[in-house]
Amino acid sequence: MDSILFDLDGTVWKDFTLIDGAAETIHALQEAGKRVVGLSNRGTHSRRQIAAYFQEHGIQWEKEDIILSSFLAADYLQTHYPKLPVWVLGEEGLREELAEADLTLAAKPEEADWLVISLHTGVTYHDLNQAFRAVIHGARILATNQDPVFPGKDGLQLDVGGLIGAIEASTGKKTDIIVGKPSHFMYQKVMQQAGSEPEKTLIVGDSLTSDIAMGAMFGLKTALVLTGNTTREQAEISSIKPDLILPSIKELPFT
Amino acid sequence: MDSILFDLDGTVWKDFTLIDGAAETIHALQEAGKRVVGLSNRGTHSRRQIAAYFQEHGIQWEKEDIILSSFLAADYLQTHYPKLPVWVLGEEGLREELAEADLTLAAKPEEADWLVISLHTGVTYHDLNQAFRAVIHGARILATNQDPVFPGKDGLQLDVGGLIGAIEASTGKKTDIIVGKPSHFMYQKVMQQAGSEPEKTLIVGDSLTSDIAMGAMFGLKTALVLTGNTTREQAEISSIKPDLILPSIKELPFT
Repeated sequence: MDSILFDLDGTVWKDFTLIDGAAETIHALQEAGKRVVGLSNRGTHSRRQIAAYFQEHGIQWEKEDIILSSFLAADYLQTHYPKLPVWVLGEEGLREELAEADLTLAAKPEEADWLVISLHTGVTYHDLNQAFRAVIHGARILATNQDPVFPGKDGLQLDVGGLIGAIEASTGKKTDIIVGKPSHFMYQKVMQQAGSEPEKTLIVGDSLTSDIAMGAMFGLKTALVLTGNTTREQAEISSIKPDLILPSIKELPFT
Repeated sequence: MDSILFDLDGTVWKDFTLIDGAAETIHALQEAGKRVVGLSNRGTHSRRQIAAYFQEHGIQWEKEDIILSSFLAADYLQTHYPKLPVWVLGEEGLREELAEADLTLAAKPEEADWLVISLHTGVTYHDLNQAFRAVIHGARILATNQDPVFPGKDGLQLDVGGLIGAIEASTGKKTDIIVGKPSHFMYQKVMQQAGSEPEKTLIVGDSLTSDIAMGAMFGLKTALVLTGNTTREQAEISSIKPDLILPSIKELPFT
């Protein structure tokens, strides 16, 4: 393997706490000359914020080594619709990525050509209504990801899928583009950053339907870790088969 | 006609302002010995609150003369599931109706057997997440109504349909029961209150798909008013045909 792609939540960290052995494993891979890239459907934060966290916790990742759906949203719009004003239903990290890509935020929802939806755990009725307005006045919808739930401190929590549902059900419109895993947007960007061939690339993640499915879809080697969303029992009865199943990132062979 | 059923929003009032002539028309009908009943998909308020408003504004309606979806929700649960604890995604008026029907509110969302969803213009992420939790822990979903939008002060606003969408999309569950127009729950309750035969009953409303459709579905006479959601042009091209089209409640013939 030339390159190793790591899902973040449930694989490298969980709720802003590193998983045991993550820093050592990533360091050893980097020392062995591998390209190591992080990827996540997280649209709440910017790459700068996440890289800063990892650097504080002993993982040497530059901003460019981390591909987040917030960045993909900004990158997609900058590439294809650089002049169109955007309305955001989401958090500060997403706005930071949009600003870094020189996109224009609409002053009013009625003036937006795109609504970008991500998780927003501070969302209010006003926020939902402003996003609704953008769409009934013609904005198309880009979602950073469509995960329905995420594991929070006290159990499962409502994820961006719920916010998408609110906007779709009230407007009667459907989301036009979802940039997060397992999309080709995510795949292409992360492979471009890794700079290697699919057959020489391993993706490591805790989700069968997101990480392992994306790897299988594009011909990567795949390793499931059991520190996140998926149990060994679930993996054994699933039709999605990883090449490897490991208790955690700590047990990753450095091949 | 023995009984006249009035939709409220867009027909009798609009955003807590009476439509010109509403008090006089309703008074004249009552004086002429007609049964006059108000009905609304509004699940945000209690009948007591709405009756108090109308009495202050010169319309003599008792609480029992007003059938709201908040009341229907409470009535349905009290009739069929009187012992089961309920979680509320909605406003104070809905809670008042549930309390009046002696229903028990669950202390935690995990303990609820029913989630009741209505419009909640103060909704936060926390509220959505608590409702989400009720459903993933087994609560069935009752919605007061499923209107996607309502006309607010500054244009269309996201209605209860959006909140339902958030819960359905994040939980993967579907709403079990919707009690508001044009359901048979609303029809039966309002006819019971009116105490008349369908062919001697006129329903007056501003919505083709809700008021006029419900009337047509159950064999009532129907009158569309143009003071709310529907224009004459929309009425003329619609497949839903009211018996009468009137500029407003003011022009209602007292037959």
